Amino acid sequence: MTRLNKFLVKVKEENLNAFLVTEPHNIFYLINCWIQGALFLTPSKKFLITSPLYEEEVNLKGKDWEIVVYHNTLEQVLKTVGRQIKPKRCGFESSSISYYQYQKLKENWERELVPYPHLIEEIRAVKDEKEISFIRDAWRVTKSTIDFLKGELHIGVTEKQIFNKAINYIEENSDGISFPPIVLFGERTSLPHGRPTARKLRKDELILLDLGAKVKGYCADLTATLFFGNVSNKWLQIYKLVSEAQKKGINEVKPGVKSSQIDESVRKVIEKGGYREAFLHTSGHGVGLQIHEKPFLKFNSEEVLKEGMVFTIEPGIYLPGQGGVRLEEMFLVTKEGGKVFNDNC
Amino acid sequence: MTRLNKFLVKVKEENLNAFLVTEPHNIFYLINCWIQGALFLTPSKKFLITSPLYEEEVNLKGKDWEIVVYHNTLEQVLKTVGRQIKPKRCGFESSSISYYQYQKLKENWERELVPYPHLIEEIRAVKDEKEISFIRDAWRVTKSTIDFLKGELHIGVTEKQIFNKAINYIEENSDGISFPPIVLFGERTSLPHGRPTARKLRKDELILLDLGAKVKGYCADLTATLFFGNVSNKWLQIYKLVSEAQKKGINEVKPGVKSSQIDESVRKVIEKGGYREAFLHTSGHGVGLQIHEKPFLKFNSEEVLKEGMVFTIEPGIYLPGQGGVRLEEMFLVTKEGGKVFNDNC
Repeated sequence: MTRLNKFLVKVKEENLNAFLVTEPHNIFYLINCWIQGALFLTPSKKFLITSPLYEEEVNLKGKDWEIVVYHNTLEQVLKTVGRQIKPKRCGFESSSISYYQYQKLKENWERELVPYPHLIEEIRAVKDEKEISFIRDAWRVTKSTIDFLKGELHIGVTEKQIFNKAINYIEENSDGISFPPIVLFGERTSLPHGRPTARKLRKDELILLDLGAKVKGYCADLTATLFFGNVSNKWLQIYKLVSEAQKKGINEVKPGVKSSQIDESVRKVIEKGGYREAFLHTSGHGVGLQIHEKPFLKFNSEEVLKEGMVFTIEPGIYLPGQGGVRLEEMFLVTKEGGKVFNDNC
Repeated sequence: MTRLNKFLVKVKEENLNAFLVTEPHNIFYLINCWIQGALFLTPSKKFLITSPLYEEEVNLKGKDWEIVVYHNTLEQVLKTVGRQIKPKRCGFESSSISYYQYQKLKENWERELVPYPHLIEEIRAVKDEKEISFIRDAWRVTKSTIDFLKGELHIGVTEKQIFNKAINYIEENSDGISFPPIVLFGERTSLPHGRPTARKLRKDELILLDLGAKVKGYCADLTATLFFGNVSNKWLQIYKLVSEAQKKGINEVKPGVKSSQIDESVRKVIEKGGYREAFLHTSGHGVGLQIHEKPFLKFNSEEVLKEGMVFTIEPGIYLPGQGGVRLEEMFLVTKEGGKVFNDNC
């Protein structure tokens, strides 16, 4: 059964007569085509609604599809299509439409609109073999980018120069970057989302590289913290602690475990080491068509790990004005537990 | 008066007791600081609410500000802050929060939440001198990037290689790219938003370059269509037509004119030339902190041009499988009319 048909079964189970998909990654997931616009899906008929900008890229076939190209606003077309089909209960993606869009859609819609914040995102969290192989390919390019960059680091090189080399390498070897690489030197490694600057690399400094490639739409995401020369014993200890925290998280991965539990275990190691306040973010996140997707490894998550999920574990310790260490690896949930993406896989 | 104080006057005029700002560009516009989170503004007290990730970047001073760093969700903190202040009527940015976020915020909020889709965006559309000078600097780097790339075009070079050179040049000479550059060769120039590929440049082809630099947060956006060698007479004619359409638009720019009128004038020239269906998008858009912002030059826009607005005019003709021509320049609305950004300004 295709992904789309599986989803339509789900729609029926939810007692809906139609579903409106507006999130571009979710649209790609269902029909393998990148467009801006919407899918309006009913058991009898399916509409793809997009602007003329994307018309050339639509590759759908089959008589149950109707392609609607709009010159006005999406909301107006949706109203027309909605009136034509008149679904009693129509599900929509409440996380991917703004309150303003909802208001415009609701005017004259006449039937019930039922919000689903993350329905397709939940399905997407579990990857099939093909998806895992794309992610593995993206991981390989990402890993080799880090190896390549290690050879480019020398005294006087700027963050921007390494950033540029990272983009060039990823673009030449994959379908593109998953996100703008993070390249930070010295005390600037304390900025979890810092942008590269003309800051030059000096002797005996920390270097933080956080980057990812994309293959067939699928993302990878790795972070390495490197020592350029000698760094103080304090940073060696911090690195060891972050690495221990990561290992603690990995060991607990298996189907049925709550993602919040992994976060708690990772966090406890950092806490015991005395750096609770310096761990500024969650312990990790799923990767797939989006760089951050389900499952989220955070304390208030209700998600449960399942076989086929792919996510990162990325503890970090940040000391403002001094520096930071973050280590990020990618994992696949298997029956046996967490399997790290590495050169043998 | 500061931007923030001007905005608070506006809030009072709207008969609101508080305003919640959640759009990151709007937050930067008001407080000159890039964060994820929210500003909750009341006449007596102002709150900046952000996650620990951005804490080091907050540079606010003054006892009327309270910095709230949240470890849970933004909505929960907002509820707490909202309950503390109890504004009767609170405005919020309905275009920048999802319906799902709205639902979560609304639970237990108790007071009236009034949607404003584009309140700050409307203010941002008119630029002050400082903003114009940043945009001019971004324009200069963008223009010189195109000049630089002209020297890098040779038979056999790939779209990706030119894309990489574009990014490197922009990153080295400005604060970064406004958006991923569009670099297309030959028949691929018909894709308005095409991603670069390993497609090699051949003799006698069209080349489309659409790119922009950022300076101090402000964007530029230019598109050039080049002839690499000789192209058929048809393409020369199409280029001439697109250029005429652009000139027609420029001549009509002055304060008080509706942006939809510019779109209509540009479109009519293309239509008379016989290519109505091949002009796939709107005639232009404002640029500033965002690459696409108010005013929008489209048929259903109610916006009226004002002195100090900065926007592009970018007609294009696209023939699927054959190629396309798009020309994009940037303009400032002055008392006298539209002033093009050029080397003399």
